[in-house]
Amino acid sequence: MIDLRSDTVTRPTEAMRRAMAAAEVGDDVYGEDPTVTALEERVAGLFGHEAALFTPTGSMANVLAVRSLVAPGQEVLCEARAHIARAELGAHGAVSGVTMRTWHAPDGSIPLAAVRDMYAPDMGPFFVPTAAVSVENTHNFAGGSVAPVEDLQALRRWATEVGTGVHLDGARIWNAHVATGVPLTTYGEVADVLAVCLSKGLGAPVGSLMVGSAPAVAEARVWRKRLGGGMRQVGVLAAAGLHALDHHLERLAEDHEHARLLADAVGVDPATVHSNIVVLPHDDAPGFVARAREAGVLVGAVGPRTVRLVTHLDVDRTAAEKAAATLASLS
Amino acid sequence: MIDLRSDTVTRPTEAMRRAMAAAEVGDDVYGEDPTVTALEERVAGLFGHEAALFTPTGSMANVLAVRSLVAPGQEVLCEARAHIARAELGAHGAVSGVTMRTWHAPDGSIPLAAVRDMYAPDMGPFFVPTAAVSVENTHNFAGGSVAPVEDLQALRRWATEVGTGVHLDGARIWNAHVATGVPLTTYGEVADVLAVCLSKGLGAPVGSLMVGSAPAVAEARVWRKRLGGGMRQVGVLAAAGLHALDHHLERLAEDHEHARLLADAVGVDPATVHSNIVVLPHDDAPGFVARAREAGVLVGAVGPRTVRLVTHLDVDRTAAEKAAATLASLS
Amino acid sequence: MIDLRSDTVTRPTEAMRRAMAAAEVGDDVYGEDPTVTALEERVAGLFGHEAALFTPTGSMANVLAVRSLVAPGQEVLCEARAHIARAELGAHGAVSGVTMRTWHAPDGSIPLAAVRDMYAPDMGPFFVPTAAVSVENTHNFAGGSVAPVEDLQALRRWATEVGTGVHLDGARIWNAHVATGVPLTTYGEVADVLAVCLSKGLGAPVGSLMVGSAPAVAEARVWRKRLGGGMRQVGVLAAAGLHALDHHLERLAEDHEHARLLADAVGVDPATVHSNIVVLPHDDAPGFVARAREAGVLVGAVGPRTVRLVTHLDVDRTAAEKAAATLASLS
Amino acid sequence: MIDLRSDTVTRPTEAMRRAMAAAEVGDDVYGEDPTVTALEERVAGLFGHEAALFTPTGSMANVLAVRSLVAPGQEVLCEARAHIARAELGAHGAVSGVTMRTWHAPDGSIPLAAVRDMYAPDMGPFFVPTAAVSVENTHNFAGGSVAPVEDLQALRRWATEVGTGVHLDGARIWNAHVATGVPLTTYGEVADVLAVCLSKGLGAPVGSLMVGSAPAVAEARVWRKRLGGGMRQVGVLAAAGLHALDHHLERLAEDHEHARLLADAVGVDPATVHSNIVVLPHDDAPGFVARAREAGVLVGAVGPRTVRLVTHLDVDRTAAEKAAATLASLS
Repeated sequence: MIDLRSDTVTRPTEAMRRAMAAAEVGDDVYGEDPTVTALEERVAGLFGHEAALFTPTGSMANVLAVRSLVAPGQEVLCEARAHIARAELGAHGAVSGVTMRTWHAPDGSIPLAAVRDMYAPDMGPFFVPTAAVSVENTHNFAGGSVAPVEDLQALRRWATEVGTGVHLDGARIWNAHVATGVPLTTYGEVADVLAVCLSKGLGAPVGSLMVGSAPAVAEARVWRKRLGGGMRQVGVLAAAGLHALDHHLERLAEDHEHARLLADAVGVDPATVHSNIVVLPHDDAPGFVARAREAGVLVGAVGPRTVRLVTHLDVDRTAAEKAAATLASLS
Repeated sequence: MIDLRSDTVTRPTEAMRRAMAAAEVGDDVYGEDPTVTALEERVAGLFGHEAALFTPTGSMANVLAVRSLVAPGQEVLCEARAHIARAELGAHGAVSGVTMRTWHAPDGSIPLAAVRDMYAPDMGPFFVPTAAVSVENTHNFAGGSVAPVEDLQALRRWATEVGTGVHLDGARIWNAHVATGVPLTTYGEVADVLAVCLSKGLGAPVGSLMVGSAPAVAEARVWRKRLGGGMRQVGVLAAAGLHALDHHLERLAEDHEHARLLADAVGVDPATVHSNIVVLPHDDAPGFVARAREAGVLVGAVGPRTVRLVTHLDVDRTAAEKAAATLASLS
Repeated sequence: MIDLRSDTVTRPTEAMRRAMAAAEVGDDVYGEDPTVTALEERVAGLFGHEAALFTPTGSMANVLAVRSLVAPGQEVLCEARAHIARAELGAHGAVSGVTMRTWHAPDGSIPLAAVRDMYAPDMGPFFVPTAAVSVENTHNFAGGSVAPVEDLQALRRWATEVGTGVHLDGARIWNAHVATGVPLTTYGEVADVLAVCLSKGLGAPVGSLMVGSAPAVAEARVWRKRLGGGMRQVGVLAAAGLHALDHHLERLAEDHEHARLLADAVGVDPATVHSNIVVLPHDDAPGFVARAREAGVLVGAVGPRTVRLVTHLDVDRTAAEKAAATLASLS
Repeated sequence: MIDLRSDTVTRPTEAMRRAMAAAEVGDDVYGEDPTVTALEERVAGLFGHEAALFTPTGSMANVLAVRSLVAPGQEVLCEARAHIARAELGAHGAVSGVTMRTWHAPDGSIPLAAVRDMYAPDMGPFFVPTAAVSVENTHNFAGGSVAPVEDLQALRRWATEVGTGVHLDGARIWNAHVATGVPLTTYGEVADVLAVCLSKGLGAPVGSLMVGSAPAVAEARVWRKRLGGGMRQVGVLAAAGLHALDHHLERLAEDHEHARLLADAVGVDPATVHSNIVVLPHDDAPGFVARAREAGVLVGAVGPRTVRLVTHLDVDRTAAEKAAATLASLS
């Protein structure tokens, strides 16, 4: 089976497992796990922020990040297919009590004019004020699209001007960085707070981080524990993340190449594929998923008429070519 | 002062006060207030629904109505300037834990294609499913626009087909009914649950109702008490509502005429004014509001560049003409 | 039928109805209802506090009051049968997200040693800190018992010393005042925030107030709207409250006398009856309730083995004596 | 440094690390991690329940377990120093919206008479019904006390009779089992749902489980993801749990012996020490903690006048004796 359902399915490599087995650990609830601390400091540094916080999932990192900017009764604006809107089981409403409104940008770009038009300043206790704008880069359900850095920078300038926050859902910010060459610090500059994942393209088994100011991260540490995410000797997982940053970052370029190869095979214009995700419109997504499975390729349906293919660490060139051939025969 | 800020500012008439003073009452928490019960049964009947529930505000009626369809972790879709999104202090997230996504229809119509495109079926515990679509009629921040009844009926058919709920925010459904002649039962047919207000165009001092099926209303009764809305001898308020339904419904046509008159005066095409609200784009809404106040007319800013004028029971023809003249001189 | 279920069942008197019909009103959401403002200022003054806020129910006043002191993740301590714990449908948890722990004082006294023993200082982000202690006076489910003022004052001194808040659920503080002669300002002094009801012993049809500091009340005003309690021309109800304060306060002494008379009839020691409530232990509370109903007296079961009798404005001496005779024959 | 602050501070042994490094893994969000599945099935079987769910922390296991029995607006009863009340940052209120009331049993026993007295049946939508009783065994802040199994069984019988749920916070159920010889299945029988921890006495670095019926666990799986606890190749952690069950269960008897040895040294009657925790009343807990640290022993303050000593896998006989001598000299 070639598994293209998600880049979350990767298994830790032997080298990564060795790094995990050798990790120096302590009780991270007491702030005493040196490997976790090293990872948090490293990731904060990569984005030019003061602090970072290890979390069990990207969902929790996003929940902590958004709530650091948006209180109950305030709103966050985001794209209509943003992961925070579509795919975190509604945690931002159910757990954080925030309001969400959405704009529509099927290509994953940041339409500043639309955002400005939606923006609600604080006009007193009748209206819901906009406390943050959330952008996702790469944008998962927009087909792994990369937001133009100029869009992000323009958003940042405007947000600073009007005094609203910017959250960057950077679950796959590594892919955006490798695809464009834009430095991670530049992505760090455009956001007040980020969520980044180690368990997707980077191939770690578990782990994400919320990245932001020292006070925001300190408060998030409390809420992480309240949500049940305050783990103990979790340096065994952080070690995988450190290893992934050392060894699995630059290779994302291969995943992107494989994705374009797959796109070409299934009739999607490779020029529209920015990173490691291919979104394939199909009249019968569940049917296509079932037929692909029978033919030895696992793909996912992310909507009734939308199939998603994702390349990753565990799909090498040979596998990608084989999957491409298989899927081409099914279309 | 001529008050055009909102149709919520009306004071009860002498006849309404007499009806309130004479109301037969009981403890409504025990279900023993005959006037409340009469109002609830009457309003349920007007919309052809099984039951209704008196609430202190339209906000609470909307909160109870939306939560009757949408559980924490599920989503409601609505227009980006819907009252439930923009103007209830974020209660649907903060209190009910629901997720919200928005479409954009500046004219208040119901773009079924866009709604269908956003709709998320229940695809298992990864995605947020769409549990309801909410429409507002008339649409307050779209300038009191009336949704075409064909749009609402098409939405209803599609929603039934896919199995999602329809919530109608009918704070001003009375205005839509009077403006179009569409029967209230027809509006009742298109929604699983409605919220309707007595304290806006109808001129009652306080009071709204949630309207729906018997089980939905029974559950809402519990949540009304949990939210602190279970009042006692509240028949004194319900009596005002019954009086308003008897005496203030048909006269809404006058408010609509006055609104077109005002629109014409401030340079808004009267043909775009569907009911009792005029939305006036202005570069400096707060400044216009201040100058109008000095000139003896109260108007409201509902956005930094949006002025709103609302006609109602306490603005008669003479006042409307005087306000029109005053505002025309300011524009 | 003589109705002893609750003092919430009173109907407004003719004089009260006239006051309501004559009330000067405005849109209270805009802070423009002079009768509401007069009531709020008067009640704040009665307790020596800066401000007060009219609410549709005592439940909402308590919810706003407790949340003004206790954030999500913090705790409030109270007696195990406190109204906030037992009888507000769990709003403090479900809506405000607070934690509650309880002490046990069946006689409604305030056992300071027990409270001190439970008190949790803020020891860092591992433990739930005690943000407030809540006391209820009179204590409904403790049989309308009056907390000794010395207990309240001792609690106040200790709370100030350790830096925790005090909430007074004063739904029936008027009864405590009349029963003991302790000034209302003294009760105001022992609490940071109070909730007081007009719709119980005072005989208004609807209405309660949250009383506290100006900033606490300002924030509560926002949350009142979020919860759906921001009513419009609600001076019609506030007028009933003002009338009740003028005419129905001192007469509570009669209710207390009637309660002792009823207690004596059903075998409860009248010396244990502090105000207008009699709690009668009974092996089969629902059965007793049913038999009393057949005999023309409505009483309530507040537990499977607890019957409650409540005297009020609509039960005069003759009715109290008749009910006493009837219930005596049933016991 | 000898670390007696908590049994959460243990570091994985070499053998455990090898087991982790060799673990077969998959994407557990898709239910495809064989090691996690094996652990879940094994733990469910140990307690005779249908299913179990791996969670990042004991806090999350408790949150999922309690919410499986108690809806917003309902209550859970527990001891006043229960971990769910005192030490999970208020998550049960803040995240799950439940109400809590507490009984007091300083020795950790289960006073059924008191629980029955508190129990609130469902009496209609006025009162908060008791949906579950939560017991903690061993009871952390009661000094690791073991609840008599007869108490638990009596609670179970009564709970079944009245129709309320039983939650067992079994973070240290392993210690209770080893201390008493009561089979784990017996503990499983007394509860509808349990939370058990691998990261305390058992010495795994991370991980807990919620244990219960198949439907309860299925729903908890959704909420686990909503709370941000749905990890991917988390078999690397589950492997540590399996190893711990194989190798670290019976040895808890040593921890218990060490605890009694420490108790004796600090003047606590060893007969009152049921398992691996010693609670030492001290007038100045923070001061004692500081002096112990200077002398090379880490202990914790769990209250302003309460010091806690905990023995565990990383404190062998020699270390325990040395700590005992050190602390004896400080008292």
